[in-house]
Amino acid sequence: MMANFTVALKELKDLLGDRLETSPSVRQHHAHDESFHQPAMPEAVAFPKSTSEVSEIAHICMRHHMPMLPFGTGTAMEGGVNAIHGGLSIDMSLMNKILSVSAEDMDCVVQAGVTRKQLNEYIRDRGVFFPIDPGADASIGGMAATRASGTNAVRYGTMREAVLSLTVVLADGKIVKTSSRARKSAAGYDLTRLFVGSEGTLCIICEITLRLHAVPEAISAAVCSFSSLKDAIDTVIETIQMGVPVARIELLDAVAIEAVNQFSHTDYPLLPHLFLEFHGTQQWVAEQAEIVKELSSEHQGGDFQWAFNTEERNALWQARHDLAYAARARRPNARIYSTDVCVPLSRLADCILETVVDITGTGFSMPIVGHVGDGNFHVVAAVDPSNAEELKVIDAFHDRLIRRALSVGGTCTGEHGIGQGKKSYLQEELPAGVDIMKIIKGSLDPDNLMNPGKVIDIE
Amino acid sequence: MMANFTVALKELKDLLGDRLETSPSVRQHHAHDESFHQPAMPEAVAFPKSTSEVSEIAHICMRHHMPMLPFGTGTAMEGGVNAIHGGLSIDMSLMNKILSVSAEDMDCVVQAGVTRKQLNEYIRDRGVFFPIDPGADASIGGMAATRASGTNAVRYGTMREAVLSLTVVLADGKIVKTSSRARKSAAGYDLTRLFVGSEGTLCIICEITLRLHAVPEAISAAVCSFSSLKDAIDTVIETIQMGVPVARIELLDAVAIEAVNQFSHTDYPLLPHLFLEFHGTQQWVAEQAEIVKELSSEHQGGDFQWAFNTEERNALWQARHDLAYAARARRPNARIYSTDVCVPLSRLADCILETVVDITGTGFSMPIVGHVGDGNFHVVAAVDPSNAEELKVIDAFHDRLIRRALSVGGTCTGEHGIGQGKKSYLQEELPAGVDIMKIIKGSLDPDNLMNPGKVIDIE
Repeated sequence: MMANFTVALKELKDLLGDRLETSPSVRQHHAHDESFHQPAMPEAVAFPKSTSEVSEIAHICMRHHMPMLPFGTGTAMEGGVNAIHGGLSIDMSLMNKILSVSAEDMDCVVQAGVTRKQLNEYIRDRGVFFPIDPGADASIGGMAATRASGTNAVRYGTMREAVLSLTVVLADGKIVKTSSRARKSAAGYDLTRLFVGSEGTLCIICEITLRLHAVPEAISAAVCSFSSLKDAIDTVIETIQMGVPVARIELLDAVAIEAVNQFSHTDYPLLPHLFLEFHGTQQWVAEQAEIVKELSSEHQGGDFQWAFNTEERNALWQARHDLAYAARARRPNARIYSTDVCVPLSRLADCILETVVDITGTGFSMPIVGHVGDGNFHVVAAVDPSNAEELKVIDAFHDRLIRRALSVGGTCTGEHGIGQGKKSYLQEELPAGVDIMKIIKGSLDPDNLMNPGKVIDIE
Repeated sequence: MMANFTVALKELKDLLGDRLETSPSVRQHHAHDESFHQPAMPEAVAFPKSTSEVSEIAHICMRHHMPMLPFGTGTAMEGGVNAIHGGLSIDMSLMNKILSVSAEDMDCVVQAGVTRKQLNEYIRDRGVFFPIDPGADASIGGMAATRASGTNAVRYGTMREAVLSLTVVLADGKIVKTSSRARKSAAGYDLTRLFVGSEGTLCIICEITLRLHAVPEAISAAVCSFSSLKDAIDTVIETIQMGVPVARIELLDAVAIEAVNQFSHTDYPLLPHLFLEFHGTQQWVAEQAEIVKELSSEHQGGDFQWAFNTEERNALWQARHDLAYAARARRPNARIYSTDVCVPLSRLADCILETVVDITGTGFSMPIVGHVGDGNFHVVAAVDPSNAEELKVIDAFHDRLIRRALSVGGTCTGEHGIGQGKKSYLQEELPAGVDIMKIIKGSLDPDNLMNPGKVIDIE
């Protein structure tokens, strides 16, 4: 195998020159994401500049049976980029061009390496914005590959809804455009959505056509404390059931608030909180806020602390987005062990309350945060990956949490994906479905070269 | 081949008894949809009552190489149910149970034969509704299979967004659940969306978990005339670009209005019209209407004629939904030849205006109607399918229309699907994509038994 890789690396060097890196430091940087999963180094890292170059890379890798591992910003949570079977990491960061923006059509075309903040910065004066916001400033390619979502999903959907079309490279180097630019289509199988969330195991995403949204006339954000988690969650459920189109409705438990206060120098009371945002016209934003305020006071919610101007709002949401880093910062040299389940709304309160009891039993302090408008929440542990005993306790907790979600009709991951960490849970969640996924994977990547060992195991 | 079918039919008879029909009248009824496409009779029609029965039917068909053609209500537009290679029509109408409704989770589980009106009737007092509304009272299974949409798509999305999970039967009889009930998930490949829109060529859809929506506190509908199509379309584009969440914004040209007036006994002036609907709180609905009224007056729109109460609104939308039947009614014994393209919003006005000129050139009178908030519109011809000369003229017009849409980055079908009518256009729209669709089809249905000859041609 290694002999073949030597030839492959020579051919890749001829193609890419300096843009093929084999230094240990660069390989080490591409050996892991932000999770606790064991790093695994690729043989080399390629930095393509165009879709056709990605296609040529795939041709070379295919001929020499070299695994291909697309790499965005390395900010995911399930070890999806780690080279567990070796191979070539394909870093998309030089494919960072915004190819077109149409404010009229409210869409844009970007290369995979463009990050979400780069895009929003670029389109900021055009009256449109891109709402999907995982914690990190991830690449659009990585976000499409992992079907990312974030705090705006309750209103604007996830990458499933945001991606209109993809240009991808398959294992054999073929370049495929999956769909037209039309906002809706019934033209054949939905290849776009098949590839969104395939985590690099079916193709390398090179270009993405994204749906954008009109910047609302008014935006206001608020923070509200509750004396119990149940009250906060019930407020969320009633808000959704009333059809109030909240743009964001995020839950942080008291432990999460403590971590945020420490990391972001805020001084929220150590109670469960909802972080809220409303989008619309001035009048409509005020009315939405009024409705939610009324619901929250019925559940003993505190006063709404408003953040009206852009800076205050950005500070508020940055604090929320930094939660994983805040949790990690509480322990020196810790890695993030972030869980991620999503359950039907009616089961959310029970599921979170049982989880709180379970956390207490572990003896560790772990914040709970959630995009609760969709039933999605995380428990963020900061672990010492070298401490086997500790990992065992957290693993067992994680296992119980996922079984709890599955037992009420939920999913083992609302947004982090399967990666290497959740393959067995996917099998439990969708046993017959995994058989179909294997058939599809086998038909498009018969040599199992696309990010092998992730999402599903090919025998 | 027929010998095998004889054995297959005997086994099916043993399984289904009276629920296997071989009478010519029943077979004839299942030989066509509502389009002009040449009817083609199946050998027999099965009426299963459960998913496991569908699985047994598939087992029998697979063993005897008998094509399987799922049948909902036969109300589609591209000949998707016609048995062009013979085989067994599988009529889902006895699978018409609503299995569960959760108003709390705003979802429900239905069997494939439940129709959209049946569902809305059933859940009417629960504070939730199901928004997807193609013209006919189609079955949910058929709507999922064709990725149907309708007049509410601009606000609530299409079946792509509405379906949370499916239970399907594959060609070999395997029963597969595609997803959990969670409102969002990153758990593996998106099999749900792969099967939504696969038009019976990959699987038989048996059960569907649907996302429901909160019934808005206030609904108001209005009709507004314009002196030109361009003015009407510009009003739509500006409404969308301002982010006004109109629930419905439908364009009817003067010819369409004439057909509606005749068929539904209305008396709208013979001018282009927008049919609009707003959903929200009382105050928010009033504000949305005010914004759109202002935009429309900037484009010389007439007064808004309001329909406030439920009956008036239903009458208004029924008139709109009946457009295809209204167009057909203008000619005795005519069949519907409904085109369906979807283009980026910025190209919509040009595309429709060029189409108007093109229609004039054909010498036929054909209404234009559109779900224009998404860039989707139809030209509805009423043809005499036995008149080859006439069909030739309409075919040529249809061909030019689709090329016009494709040339501006649009799609050959926004909602009717590919069926047997648009295979060559799909090939033109997504040449490399069709290769991938064939690979996937071949991997899941190696004997090409699932609705053969539709969507893609397997050599």
